Formats: sequence, C-alpha cells, structure tokens
Amino acid sequence: MHPHVTAATLERVAGHRARFDLRFGQYFDTLAGRFDVPVPSRYVPRCVELLREFSMRGGKRLRVVLLYEAARLVTTDEVAGLAEAALSIELLQTHGLVHDDIIDDAPLRRGGPSTYYAYRAEFPGSGPTALGLAVLAGDLAAFLSTQVLLEAAAPAELRQALLGVHTRTAAETVAGQIADLERDSHALPDEEFLHTVTDFKSARYSVLAPLTMGLLAAGEDPRPHRARLHRYARLVGIGEQMRDDYLDLFGPYGDDPAAEGKSTGADLRAGRRTYAVRALLAATTGADAAAVEAALGDPGCTDATLGRIREIARAAGVDRTLRAEIRRHAEAAAAEAASWEPFWRAEAVDFFRGLPMWNVERMP
Amino acid sequence: MHPHVTAATLERVAGHRARFDLRFGQYFDTLAGRFDVPVPSRYVPRCVELLREFSMRGGKRLRVVLLYEAARLVTTDEVAGLAEAALSIELLQTHGLVHDDIIDDAPLRRGGPSTYYAYRAEFPGSGPTALGLAVLAGDLAAFLSTQVLLEAAAPAELRQALLGVHTRTAAETVAGQIADLERDSHALPDEEFLHTVTDFKSARYSVLAPLTMGLLAAGEDPRPHRARLHRYARLVGIGEQMRDDYLDLFGPYGDDPAAEGKSTGADLRAGRRTYAVRALLAATTGADAAAVEAALGDPGCTDATLGRIREIARAAGVDRTLRAEIRRHAEAAAAEAASWEPFWRAEAVDFFRGLPMWNVERMP
Repeated sequence: MHPHVTAATLERVAGHRARFDLRFGQYFDTLAGRFDVPVPSRYVPRCVELLREFSMRGGKRLRVVLLYEAARLVTTDEVAGLAEAALSIELLQTHGLVHDDIIDDAPLRRGGPSTYYAYRAEFPGSGPTALGLAVLAGDLAAFLSTQVLLEAAAPAELRQALLGVHTRTAAETVAGQIADLERDSHALPDEEFLHTVTDFKSARYSVLAPLTMGLLAAGEDPRPHRARLHRYARLVGIGEQMRDDYLDLFGPYGDDPAAEGKSTGADLRAGRRTYAVRALLAATTGADAAAVEAALGDPGCTDATLGRIREIARAAGVDRTLRAEIRRHAEAAAAEAASWEPFWRAEAVDFFRGLPMWNVERMP
Repeated sequence: MHPHVTAATLERVAGHRARFDLRFGQYFDTLAGRFDVPVPSRYVPRCVELLREFSMRGGKRLRVVLLYEAARLVTTDEVAGLAEAALSIELLQTHGLVHDDIIDDAPLRRGGPSTYYAYRAEFPGSGPTALGLAVLAGDLAAFLSTQVLLEAAAPAELRQALLGVHTRTAAETVAGQIADLERDSHALPDEEFLHTVTDFKSARYSVLAPLTMGLLAAGEDPRPHRARLHRYARLVGIGEQMRDDYLDLFGPYGDDPAAEGKSTGADLRAGRRTYAVRALLAATTGADAAAVEAALGDPGCTDATLGRIREIARAAGVDRTLRAEIRRHAEAAAAEAASWEPFWRAEAVDFFRGLPMWNVERMP
C-alpha cells in the first residue's frame, strides 16, 4: 500500500461509499414525489426500476469519494449540498453509461446487462422499441441529475454554482464522447488527441467536476484553483483510461475487482483506437501490422486471433510501455496533489496524493 | 378568422417569432464561450452546426408565442428571464425531436432531414456512428437547454423557479414518450390512455410549461392557477395531437404550411396507435378491419393500400368524427381561457381564447 493511503483513509472511503449507497436507495424510494408519471403505465415504472437497478450496481463510486474528499480539503464539518451533488454526479454517470452502451452496442456493464440489452431481452421481437426505451431511460437520468441539485437543501447561490459546474461539465462530456467517435475515423490517431478526448469524455466529469463541486460546497471558491485541479484531473483521467484500455487488450490481472464483467478484446473487435490499440498499431510493421489491421474492427475476430495479437503486442513491448505510462501519469498526478499542501488540509491532500497510485500498485 | 384573433394579435405573434429567431441565431453565434470543446475536432463543430440548422428550421414557434403571451397576461412591460426561457424551451424541443427521430427512425422533420438521417447521409457505411452521433447531439441540446436558463439575466429566485419547471417538465415529457411506446403494445388502446400520453408527451412541455414560465417571469405565482392552466394545456395538446394524427392518415388540406414535410401514412405503416388509427380500428369490422390490421405496422404498405384504407376510414366516418373531436377540444380550451378574465389582462386572455380555434378554422 502506498504510504499516503492509511487504514484510516480506507475506512473513510468505505464510509463515503456506504453512506452514499444508502442515500441513493432513499432517493429512488422517494422518486415518485419528484415528477408525475402517466397512470396506468407499466413501461414508466419499469424504466425507473431499470435505472435504479443499474445505478445501484455502480462499482467503486470513485466520483462520490472524490467529491467528499474535496470538501475535506477545506473542512471536516458536515457540508450542505454535498449529498445532492453526489446523487447528481452518479445520476449523470447513469445517463452517460446508458447512452454509451447504445452507442457501443455493449451487452454488459458493471457485471450485468446494459440497460439497452436489458430492454432487448424484454422485447426480443422489437429492436426499435428496445432502442427507443434505452434512449429515453438515459434522457430521464439526465434530467433527474439536474433536478436533484435544484432540490438541494443548500443556499440558492451554492445550488446555482453547483448546477453551473454540472451542466457545463455535462455538455463538455458529450463533446468528448463525440470526439471519441471521431478518434476511430483516424487510421493512427495522434496521442495528444487521445489525451484531449480522455480529458473531455472522462476526466472532467469523473474528477474535475467532483473536485470543483466538493470545494464549492465546502465554501471555497474553486476558480483560482481551476488550473491545478484540471492538471490533476487530466493526469488521473488519462491514467485510468490507459488502464481500462490495457485491461481490454491484455486482460485482467491480479485480484482486481474492477476488471470483472469486462470483455477482453472488445475494443479491438469494435475498431476502437484506444491507447492500447494505438500503441500496438504504432509498434508493429509487416506481417504483424497486417494481422493487427485485419483484426481491428472485425466483430468476428476469434479468441485465437486475439491471443496471437496479444503475443505480438507483448513481443513489441506494448504491455510494458503502457504500464510505464500509467505509472508515469499516476506519479505526475501524485506530485500535482503534493503541491496543494499550501492551500488545503494535509490529511485530504494526502488522500489525493495516494489515490493515483492505487491502480498502479494493483499491477503485475 | 376567429373574432378573438385580431390583426393586432397576428402582428404581435409575428413579432414574437421574428424577435425570437434573431435571438436564437445570436445564441448559437456565442455558443463557443459557453463550454469548452476538444481541439482539434471536426465532429464537435459539425454537431453544433447540425443542432443550429435544425433548431433554426423550427416552424411556428408555438411554445415561444405561448410564453410571451403568458407574460402579457400580467404585464406589457419587458420581463427579465423571458428570452432565456424561450431559448431553453426551444432547445428542449430540439433535444426531444432529435431523439424522437431516432426512436421513430424518421428521415424527415420540419421539411428537411432529421438529425439522425443527416448523420446517416454523412456516414453511409457506418450506421452505428450515425446513431451514436445523433444520440449525442440530442444529449448536448438537453444540457444546453438547462444551461441557458442558468445564465438568465434574472433574479436567482426566478432562475431557480424557471429551472424547476423546465426540469420537472422535461422528466414528465420523457415519461410521456415512454408511455407513447407502450401505447403501441395495446391492440386497441383506450382513448383515455391516449389522452394521458398526449398530456405527458406533448401538452406539458408545449403548453403548460410555457404558460407557467411566462407567468413566473412576469412575477405571478402560477401555483394557485395550476389546475386551470393544465386543463387548457391538455385540451390544446389533445386537439393538436388529433390534428397531427388526422393529417397523417388523411393528408394535408387547404393551404396549411404546418402539413409540409409530413409523410402521409407514416403512423399506420409504423404501427402507431394514434387517435386516427385508434378511431379506424374501433370503427371497422370484417374485411375492412382485416385490411386495416394487415396494413398496420407494415412498412411496405403501398400507397394504393393506404388509399384503400383512407376510403374505408372515410366510409366509416372517421374523418368527420375526428374533425368534430378536434373542434370540441378547441371550443373547450377557448371556454377555459374565457374563464381566466377575472385574473388576467383581457387582451392576452383573448389571445388564449382565439388560439385553439386557429387549427379548426384551417379545416375543410
């Protein structure tokens, strides 16, 4: 374990998660009072049920932990608006994943069916109905994500500031997802473009927004700190994305629970130019390059072919290079957090120093 | 022309539209400052361009007119927050239509290509890319619809109240669209269910929300008036929906510009149990009923078959019955508005009395 991550920190993180999951369940219990639904209807309650089930299945709650720890950069007091900000962030995450799984035609998410595929199973004869319901489920989650912040038991000015971060971040995340589709139109996208895409589609809503909202709720003006928070978010986001991409090509390692429910080789088969796929394309020539090109974007690529490509990648050192890059980004993120000591509480700063190394230390 | 609609009213309505369209163009001109976009990217600017083009193509701006006239129920003064509320409502409309055209697989909208089909034309070899980009375009419009209200040059309390109406209405509209898909799972849906679906998927955001937001911006507490506003919205919404459904089965009539770009018979071919299709199913038996059932949900139904079904419908009096129902709903809405005289300015009340009859009077 990294020196900055103590047993007390781990216990605190577990506490954030448990408290949040309880609150998230309560939120769904009281959803009926928040907007009218058509009566009689079976489809609307079923949609809410699927959103609840999917949302509650959410894994590490990294965003919630970052949000709560960001408030602790300033204070250990209870902070108004934080609970609603956490609900809003996780509902936005639900929205994004439900639509992402339509875009990627992904059957699995979080160790269970994606919402799109849950609907496909319920309407086996009608693809368009399943698609329509999944689009609408994602839309509903987006509006609920805004609504819960509007209802926050917090001063109007804070609510407004939180909503401003939420909505701008949501728009930037969509822009990032659009650029993510653009990435795959490049034969060999530039690494800097991959970084930009990761920043927009992931770092901003997963790291920068929780940090900013946590500070806001704790009474800190985040604007003077925007550049440092963004540097950290980008480094953590890129490291996490590289790790996801590594896992997809090379498979799970160690006892990493986050790797569960992920299908190895999905990126390659779908033709996604991820960090791992890009590194592989850049590192190969001749017959090896031809084998990679042939598999890329071929949904019928067999496990045997995938195994061969994995060997090509290992022989070219792509696995080692990626692991080194992941480590480098984590170290840079930790160094960035270390530079926050003049501004904020040491204990919480230590948390942000330690966090980026967690992923690295689970690596072989 | 209906006695309550004077030349001065028509001129005012034209003024609302012209002013709004100018403002909408300015909004899109200044969009770059509202959120960051990945650089370099071609897909993100293209998405914004398509949203702009689609939004500016919007026809009657009924919602904008209702919003401005609702403020005039209280005052003829310039009212803070109204312009942003109008932008927000129309961006929400763009969001809804972009996703609706995915759900319905609709090539045409507002006399041009739907956003989904614009993308399909740009990515002829890649259906999933076009689908993904269209889902994301709709998502972006949803978040912009919230953001523009957050930025309204109005007191924080008003902004919050407008946002509350916006977001609750958006969630209820999604619930209505879900129920709309459910409708088509019934062999012969009950008419009351069709009314409920229309209320949720259309009347609330197209009529009730603009009325409520206009009153709010003008300083009126809309809560004591909620029931009367909702009665009016529901009657107008049902009348408009019946008219759309009538047009789809019986085709355009007179010189109605709103009928342009609509493809006759689309509802029948797609198996949608609209008011017109429901009335037709309820009015036929034997060989006629069998012919209707055979065509319903058959995308390959020929124009000749459609013509035969139209004749069956006319022989059964479905056209006359529907026109009578449209008139009845318009008259009831006008009577509802007439009952508002004790509360609000006579000139604006007259506008709301006259409006429902416009559609009726364009009828043969």
